[in-house]
Amino acid sequence: MTKPLPRKIAVMGAGSWGTTFAKVMADAVAEHNIQVEIWARREDAAVEIRENHTNSRYLRNTKLPANISASSDQQAVLAGADLVVLAIPSQSLRAELDKFKEFFEPEVTVLSLMKGLERGTDMRMSQVIAEVSGLPEERIAVLSGPNLAMEIAREQPTASVVACSDEDTAGWIAQLCSAAYFRPYTNDDVLGVELGGIVKNVIALAVGMCDGMGMGDNTKSTVITRGLAETMRLVLALGGRMETLSGLSGLGDLVATCSSSLSRNNTAGRLLGQGLFLEEVNDRMSQTAEGIKSARAVLDLSRANNVEMPITEAVVMVLEGTLSVENMAQRLLSRELKSEGEQQ
Amino acid sequence: MTKPLPRKIAVMGAGSWGTTFAKVMADAVAEHNIQVEIWARREDAAVEIRENHTNSRYLRNTKLPANISASSDQQAVLAGADLVVLAIPSQSLRAELDKFKEFFEPEVTVLSLMKGLERGTDMRMSQVIAEVSGLPEERIAVLSGPNLAMEIAREQPTASVVACSDEDTAGWIAQLCSAAYFRPYTNDDVLGVELGGIVKNVIALAVGMCDGMGMGDNTKSTVITRGLAETMRLVLALGGRMETLSGLSGLGDLVATCSSSLSRNNTAGRLLGQGLFLEEVNDRMSQTAEGIKSARAVLDLSRANNVEMPITEAVVMVLEGTLSVENMAQRLLSRELKSEGEQQ
Repeated sequence: MTKPLPRKIAVMGAGSWGTTFAKVMADAVAEHNIQVEIWARREDAAVEIRENHTNSRYLRNTKLPANISASSDQQAVLAGADLVVLAIPSQSLRAELDKFKEFFEPEVTVLSLMKGLERGTDMRMSQVIAEVSGLPEERIAVLSGPNLAMEIAREQPTASVVACSDEDTAGWIAQLCSAAYFRPYTNDDVLGVELGGIVKNVIALAVGMCDGMGMGDNTKSTVITRGLAETMRLVLALGGRMETLSGLSGLGDLVATCSSSLSRNNTAGRLLGQGLFLEEVNDRMSQTAEGIKSARAVLDLSRANNVEMPITEAVVMVLEGTLSVENMAQRLLSRELKSEGEQQ
Repeated sequence: MTKPLPRKIAVMGAGSWGTTFAKVMADAVAEHNIQVEIWARREDAAVEIRENHTNSRYLRNTKLPANISASSDQQAVLAGADLVVLAIPSQSLRAELDKFKEFFEPEVTVLSLMKGLERGTDMRMSQVIAEVSGLPEERIAVLSGPNLAMEIAREQPTASVVACSDEDTAGWIAQLCSAAYFRPYTNDDVLGVELGGIVKNVIALAVGMCDGMGMGDNTKSTVITRGLAETMRLVLALGGRMETLSGLSGLGDLVATCSSSLSRNNTAGRLLGQGLFLEEVNDRMSQTAEGIKSARAVLDLSRANNVEMPITEAVVMVLEGTLSVENMAQRLLSRELKSEGEQQ
């Protein structure tokens, strides 16, 4: 690993995950006197992070490390940053990146924390980054894993996966986010890691719906198991690897999301399962769950590749009002007896 | 599928799972007027099932179907039974089977519901059945899946896997336990299905320990993910299939067990994580958790086959008093950075 340490790290986005991951990196690089600077859209958020070392809107009770600073000025944040971490709402990435890419350092490496498919293009975030920035794929990485932000902010032991087609880049980033409570592994299957993180939000909606209807752990585990199976089918069809989905960014992330009451997707599904309309669910939540935004794009992607994804399909039908939640679970379990390998 | 319907089904064992599965089968075959007869060790339990159609010790609030009867006489229960379901404590199977095998019908098929490795021999239950009864493997099947008995007794939708080297036998049994709320799939990987059900109890102990120490869903999902990975390594080394472990009897059962407060293994782990000694945990629970009984045998089996199982090893060390629970989680996460595929 010959790549030198970065002069500075920029984190674009001051939501709960962006802020939490900035803390992880700041803790990881503190001994090297490297600064982590967060770009916050709102000036008051930047001031609070810079002066109080807190982000009370997203992370109550967390004191951010001394080597974190913040600004609402994109150019200032990106100046001198050899590693740029993107934590922007996925549907806004293209427009936002188009504005600030001109401030990138020439040799910059970009890490995406985002989980979503762009509507209209069905592109993954790393693909949008490549297209908009023109960076080569060896300088674009993604991070995904069983990573509930609140738990990491409380420094509970967590593992994750950094994926990049270039192993040196993945290893370099892993080193920069390896803290006592955060253990990154590396993987070169960017597509598998990224899609695992996207589809799991759709599956979490389905599991939440079952929960909301009062179903038990047998049913929920079955939906998780088959949900992972349909994710694997999609990833294999697109050229990713099955082992990636068996790992932390696939199975691990799916289980964490489906188990946690901290997950927005799980919560949104539960409210739908209790009989609320989609509009009511969106009204109740401060932020639309990512699975609600991505479900249709995942289904479109699966159809374009002739992959059967019955759980995703059922979720989309519930979201679009063509299937009632009551009929959903029944639909998922009432297939004729067959050999397990053939199950869909 | 040319095999005729059984004249009668016998279920040996009146614990919570044996009784619940007897109900599933009775519901499945009611339209064919087939009787399901339970053998209960205690005469008062047999009388209660026969006369009240309840088993209040294990299944409060469940009314058993009319076509279930019970007896404490093994010979009477086995007479005319073309399918015999075994739900006996795994460490007692050999001695018990040795007593009643003489009452088997000549063409009997046996289905094991049991999850454990025999101490001393490290044999799976289907292997013990084959050795003691002399039955050919095409008439020995196992059932395993995300099957918390209490939820099935409440008729919550559940899927499961019937495994037999003979597909016709597996299909025949699947047909006999296919109820509105219970959906069996078939598989011919007996070893994979059986080991998935055994090792998951050991992993559930580890997850319970993390829970008891106050760790969050990130940590628990990581232990589940790596626990499944070490189970896969063992199954592959012994000739089973990875896909089996990705299915309902592997991942599905593991997630259900680790999520549920109804699981004895999860509960035992949690008490250990809270700092209780093993003796105190066993005293508090009406029945020793299966993972506590099987952990050492699983570790022995893995060592005999040169398979690394660090979570199982850590659980055994905690159970045997050579590792504190506090050091366990740290041990599991503090491995040096590496590529995800190499992780152990």
